[in-house]
Amino acid sequence: MVLSEKDVENRLDLQLRFIIEIDKLKQVFRRTRLFDNSRHENDAEHGWHLAMMALTLGEYADEEIDVNRVVRMLLAHDIVEVDAGDTFLYDEAANEAKAEIERCAAERIFGLLPHDQMVELMSLWEEFEARETADARFAAALDRLEPIMQNALTAGYAWKQHDVRKSQVVKKNRPIIEAGSRALWRFAEGLIAQAVESGHLKE
Amino acid sequence: MVLSEKDVENRLDLQLRFIIEIDKLKQVFRRTRLFDNSRHENDAEHGWHLAMMALTLGEYADEEIDVNRVVRMLLAHDIVEVDAGDTFLYDEAANEAKAEIERCAAERIFGLLPHDQMVELMSLWEEFEARETADARFAAALDRLEPIMQNALTAGYAWKQHDVRKSQVVKKNRPIIEAGSRALWRFAEGLIAQAVESGHLKE
Repeated sequence: MVLSEKDVENRLDLQLRFIIEIDKLKQVFRRTRLFDNSRHENDAEHGWHLAMMALTLGEYADEEIDVNRVVRMLLAHDIVEVDAGDTFLYDEAANEAKAEIERCAAERIFGLLPHDQMVELMSLWEEFEARETADARFAAALDRLEPIMQNALTAGYAWKQHDVRKSQVVKKNRPIIEAGSRALWRFAEGLIAQAVESGHLKE
Repeated sequence: MVLSEKDVENRLDLQLRFIIEIDKLKQVFRRTRLFDNSRHENDAEHGWHLAMMALTLGEYADEEIDVNRVVRMLLAHDIVEVDAGDTFLYDEAANEAKAEIERCAAERIFGLLPHDQMVELMSLWEEFEARETADARFAAALDRLEPIMQNALTAGYAWKQHDVRKSQVVKKNRPIIEAGSRALWRFAEGLIAQAVESGHLKE
């Protein structure tokens, strides 16, 4: 694409509006805590940590994946929460209403970008949500694994806070993590068993 | 690589130690503030934001770049600060001591990983620091651009706090940003000029 200086300015304006808007993700706090239990995690640092997990653990995907696409998907997957807020995995009612709210948010926020980039991020986000590709399945597995690690390392903080039981943790996470990586599910299963044994997760 | 279940466990152990260790980056706070000036930014969310900037602004690189490598570089570039802490760009004395301290940090933290991954992240970090490749130059340009945007949007918060003048901002940032992207330097220059005009940055 060859652009005049004026075209560049217009296009850059749109991109900068987006870059400024997504700063708000640093203010969206999740139910889970940092590994040292000092405070809740926000969505921006969560995105960074998941991307680092993809770079480090990509070899455990059971299907062939493109790690770079998984990274991009994970960086962008929670941007909709600037408008929609974080939905706790175990809040069934909130999760039912979530799809529509998040779609509006995606249209508004990705819609700040020039059309070609909007389409790209929108379809990456839709792919993540649908979990119908190997990349999306592995990305989703990491998105589920991190909170289990966070709970395991903070004596079950969010699980206890919201009275979550082992059966719910297994039901909600096993199909997703196992679909991306059986090795990572084995590891998660071990953490869950230890948490039950230590009394940090109700049987 | 074909690994037995035992090999996987050992390798995964190392990788998980690393993933747990780098959580500490969420506690390393920078001199600059979020765009809404509500608090200081931490290194983990900074890494996420720069990676999103690379995905959005990659087209402004003056040389051919591999955006995926730039993203990986930006995600990893501040991990050394888990040990070394954040060094303020305009603190000349601290910046002189920085190189050696950060090298030790890189060896310790990347050294938690299996050897092949340690080598990969170590060389990506070295490449970023050396700024001798197109990918590193563009990554460094974004790393300098974000704080200028943060200062511009917070009435010069960190500049005022540390009595930084326009000449210092230009001297420290122009060569780095311009080496990665002349278009992004033009934008940064505009922000700096506006900040001087509004009295948020001393002439």
